[in-house]
Amino acid sequence: MDIDKANRTAVERMTSARPMLTGIARARDVIPGLHDDLLLHAGPPIAWERASGPLRGAVIGALLFEGRARSEAEAVALVERGEVRLEPCHHHAAVGPMAGVISSSMRVYVVEDAVHGHRTFSNLNEGYGKVLRYGAFSDEVLAKLRWMNDVLASVLAEALALAGGIDLRALLAEALHMGDEGHNRNKAGSLLFLKLLAPHIAHGKSGADAQSEVLKFLGDNPLSVLNPVMAACKAMADATHGVEGSTIVSTMARNGTDFGIRVSGLGDRWFTAPAQVPDGLYFPGFTAADANPDIGDSTITETAGIGAFAMAAAPAIVTFIGGTPQDAVHATLEMYEITAAEHSQFTIPALGFRGTPVGIDLRKVVELGITPRVNTGIAHRQAGVGQVGAGLVRPPMEIFEAALVAFAERYLE
Amino acid sequence: MDIDKANRTAVERMTSARPMLTGIARARDVIPGLHDDLLLHAGPPIAWERASGPLRGAVIGALLFEGRARSEAEAVALVERGEVRLEPCHHHAAVGPMAGVISSSMRVYVVEDAVHGHRTFSNLNEGYGKVLRYGAFSDEVLAKLRWMNDVLASVLAEALALAGGIDLRALLAEALHMGDEGHNRNKAGSLLFLKLLAPHIAHGKSGADAQSEVLKFLGDNPLSVLNPVMAACKAMADATHGVEGSTIVSTMARNGTDFGIRVSGLGDRWFTAPAQVPDGLYFPGFTAADANPDIGDSTITETAGIGAFAMAAAPAIVTFIGGTPQDAVHATLEMYEITAAEHSQFTIPALGFRGTPVGIDLRKVVELGITPRVNTGIAHRQAGVGQVGAGLVRPPMEIFEAALVAFAERYLE
Repeated sequence: MDIDKANRTAVERMTSARPMLTGIARARDVIPGLHDDLLLHAGPPIAWERASGPLRGAVIGALLFEGRARSEAEAVALVERGEVRLEPCHHHAAVGPMAGVISSSMRVYVVEDAVHGHRTFSNLNEGYGKVLRYGAFSDEVLAKLRWMNDVLASVLAEALALAGGIDLRALLAEALHMGDEGHNRNKAGSLLFLKLLAPHIAHGKSGADAQSEVLKFLGDNPLSVLNPVMAACKAMADATHGVEGSTIVSTMARNGTDFGIRVSGLGDRWFTAPAQVPDGLYFPGFTAADANPDIGDSTITETAGIGAFAMAAAPAIVTFIGGTPQDAVHATLEMYEITAAEHSQFTIPALGFRGTPVGIDLRKVVELGITPRVNTGIAHRQAGVGQVGAGLVRPPMEIFEAALVAFAERYLE
Repeated sequence: MDIDKANRTAVERMTSARPMLTGIARARDVIPGLHDDLLLHAGPPIAWERASGPLRGAVIGALLFEGRARSEAEAVALVERGEVRLEPCHHHAAVGPMAGVISSSMRVYVVEDAVHGHRTFSNLNEGYGKVLRYGAFSDEVLAKLRWMNDVLASVLAEALALAGGIDLRALLAEALHMGDEGHNRNKAGSLLFLKLLAPHIAHGKSGADAQSEVLKFLGDNPLSVLNPVMAACKAMADATHGVEGSTIVSTMARNGTDFGIRVSGLGDRWFTAPAQVPDGLYFPGFTAADANPDIGDSTITETAGIGAFAMAAAPAIVTFIGGTPQDAVHATLEMYEITAAEHSQFTIPALGFRGTPVGIDLRKVVELGITPRVNTGIAHRQAGVGQVGAGLVRPPMEIFEAALVAFAERYLE
């Protein structure tokens, strides 16, 4: 069996994928298998009893938002009675940052890989501050979600239709030349997103006030493009998944309790272990004692060869997540050790336009004892509080070891 | 006499300047001394007989644009008969890229230094392609200038008024963290400019078509913000000018024939010598034989501590001007040798957030034999053709030597 050959195929599928942002739709109309009694969440599967504070908060918020519950207690009771179930976004071709909760009436981005045909989805980004994805569910949070669903989504949908879609791979490639790494720093990408949409927003039918609000919201939120980028990376990762005999990691995701991975040649099985608390910079008034363990599907960016893997492209990010610009370069250099290829589309000017490290090879992770690096936001451990910082984290080594054992059992015996 | 102390004062005035983009106006209404029989141009003073092809082309184009001439021959005759005169932008608190021609009815950006009170001006950027500033004057060029004067300027003026002005120093500081160097690469800065204006453009009274066209023009032109940035740098340079006993260079500018500098402690005297042809990358079909010598006021960016001085912030620029990302780092490191300070506002992430080299000290240039580096576009030597490439150039050493002699004569005898 030629694992290297399988891995070349898997990585070639990832780097040749060309995810296009084609539109915006109501989640239950487009996400396969989603219905009104189901909430999607970030990371591997988890039972409510083991769910962390921020995930619980986001579930409560989503049920309030959907009008299924009128109070926190009612929302919790709905889930405890099993009337509303929880399943991973990843089981439904979707991804969501942090808690990653997507409910049936939320508007989502629709991304289509023009090469391999996968359709993927992500919710709309709420910006910084008190937001559902960090587990906050106050009236203010819900009011913003309603504005996003009504005004923002309508204006974006209209503009995207007029634009005829957006090539997210091209956008990302350019953003990496403008100091982004595509995960925690999407300043340039969000401005490129704004630039592509703005002329079409002006031609929309929503009126000057709505257009102005949306232009301001998109421009002021340096994470505007994170969610479409995540859906793009999910499409790339889905393209790499399912290659017989490949040890390339095709999913990394966390639910706030467990960190889970899936592997191209090992089907839909998750390998999970307890998630770690990130190392990072905390907002004033917060410390590591407030931090929830690592959470979110945004590790799909590192899975696809950007994020922490492209840190050398984004030296200014250290003001947000800690460390020095030299550390950022070293982060990327280290990731070349555990990856199968250098990206043909995503390049890093400061490294002489070397391609980003792409395609995490399970074998190299275990052999070298080097786990993937991940850039991440840090959520407060209690429901309802929100973001407390940002930093770096690594998945637990044991999930890679377990996956390699499973690979040996599946293929080598 | 304490030259070092004078230089500290001069540089402190430059780095503490806070240029705000406050509005747009008709040139003759705001630029001191401008009238209908006067055209402003880039660089030190020059007689028509010695003017280069691109400067002649831009003068011809401006006279056609103003309706003063109906043909190239008529325009040339007007200047030859002395009915229209030429003076440097720099003599009128203005700057213009490349040929830098500003005529009385053109709309210009108005910049005001909130700290020292200087008002400065620059014309609107035309984008790439066949443009007046590179000496092209076809009907297409004139039609675009008319659209800019009528539609673009109106929409921008309205949006700037609603925005209450734009802090250009803050914009530049952010752009340097996003891969710009502020002279030949203004991709991020132009998107930040778009982001700040877009919500106000949507609230303007010009109608959806005009708004959409302007949003597209601003977003598609990675030099949109160059001209306001140049006016901002001019304001910073004007703040540094006129400090008794200072050897800090307060102007560097080229007219396509001569390169000229002025010095803080030496009044309004220019020191000039023939400009060089830049080293760089040529567009397909062109070579160095097509190139005009260095032209434009855009060296005001290097004078103010950005542009080639901040190359280490912009490794991706080498795809446009040639060289390697390592050369870009070395360019900045070399400029620390001939400058008086590190900028307190403009920092370079890749150099551990070190301030950009700022305040060119005449003494160091001559002592070390290191002339300032300049990033630049390259114009075709014939009128009417346009841009043929982009690259790097240095001013002739003899102008620094002549200035140092003059400094000695003025102060040390």
